[in-house]
Amino acid sequence: MLIREFTDADWPQVWSIVREVVVAADTFVYDPGLTEESARAMWVEAPPGVTVVALDGDRVLGTAKIGPNKPGPGAHVATASFMVSAAARGRGVGRAMVEYALDWARRQGYAAMQFNAVAESNTWAVELYRRLGFTVIGTVPEAFALPDGKRVGLHIMHRFL
Amino acid sequence: MLIREFTDADWPQVWSIVREVVVAADTFVYDPGLTEESARAMWVEAPPGVTVVALDGDRVLGTAKIGPNKPGPGAHVATASFMVSAAARGRGVGRAMVEYALDWARRQGYAAMQFNAVAESNTWAVELYRRLGFTVIGTVPEAFALPDGKRVGLHIMHRFL
Repeated sequence: MLIREFTDADWPQVWSIVREVVVAADTFVYDPGLTEESARAMWVEAPPGVTVVALDGDRVLGTAKIGPNKPGPGAHVATASFMVSAAARGRGVGRAMVEYALDWARRQGYAAMQFNAVAESNTWAVELYRRLGFTVIGTVPEAFALPDGKRVGLHIMHRFL
Repeated sequence: MLIREFTDADWPQVWSIVREVVVAADTFVYDPGLTEESARAMWVEAPPGVTVVALDGDRVLGTAKIGPNKPGPGAHVATASFMVSAAARGRGVGRAMVEYALDWARRQGYAAMQFNAVAESNTWAVELYRRLGFTVIGTVPEAFALPDGKRVGLHIMHRFL
């Protein structure tokens, strides 16, 4: 598996993954009705951020974006988002992308990485982040509405780099 | 004091307050180099959000924006931001705007209100929010760089409506 920076030619495959994840509406606080144009503006980071793809040959298995969590006085803390194609789960793609993001953020001089909204029902992600050194700073109760209407908490997760 | 929805004619006075607060860079995680155009796009909310002003006659004492904290599965939680002109502090403008925001969010059917990044050094705001029923969900350590370089925590604060 190769992880490298996103190029324009990757967009059709990246959009396929973003659409799949956003329409499922069970992990990300994104609008499930997101248009392709808005999705591209949202997912493809401008500097100082970066968007990457995880590849098996020409096939995009997953994608991530990494950059400052907030501008100005908050810009020394990074954030990142990760999406893995449903067909490629269970192969370590997510873990490889999180490790890439941590390494990238460290090299860019960020002091920490923060995830703002990890659905507590997304146990796969929560456990992966914990194994990679993140702790739950707090959980906003009932802040994420699952497709069946049930509301679960959103974790804020963090680690120093 | 009157609190009402923002109109275009308010912008020069609102920009004066936003610029003052952003340049001070001691409370908000906004880019201190924010242009007027970016500031307007950032501060003046499109529906379903709203931007308001607190007035003494024709004079804008403070301004607030209120809307969904996140789209999609997070859109039932509101967020809000408040700025008070330095010349108008200590007159209850902030408190009146927070009460207005809570009432507005309740009427719009939001389930809760969340503040994502309250600098712990901004004790005036932290204490006001506590008195109005907010609790600290968690504190991201060293996430806010004060103008002197010292890093303080950013509180995530929340209350149900």
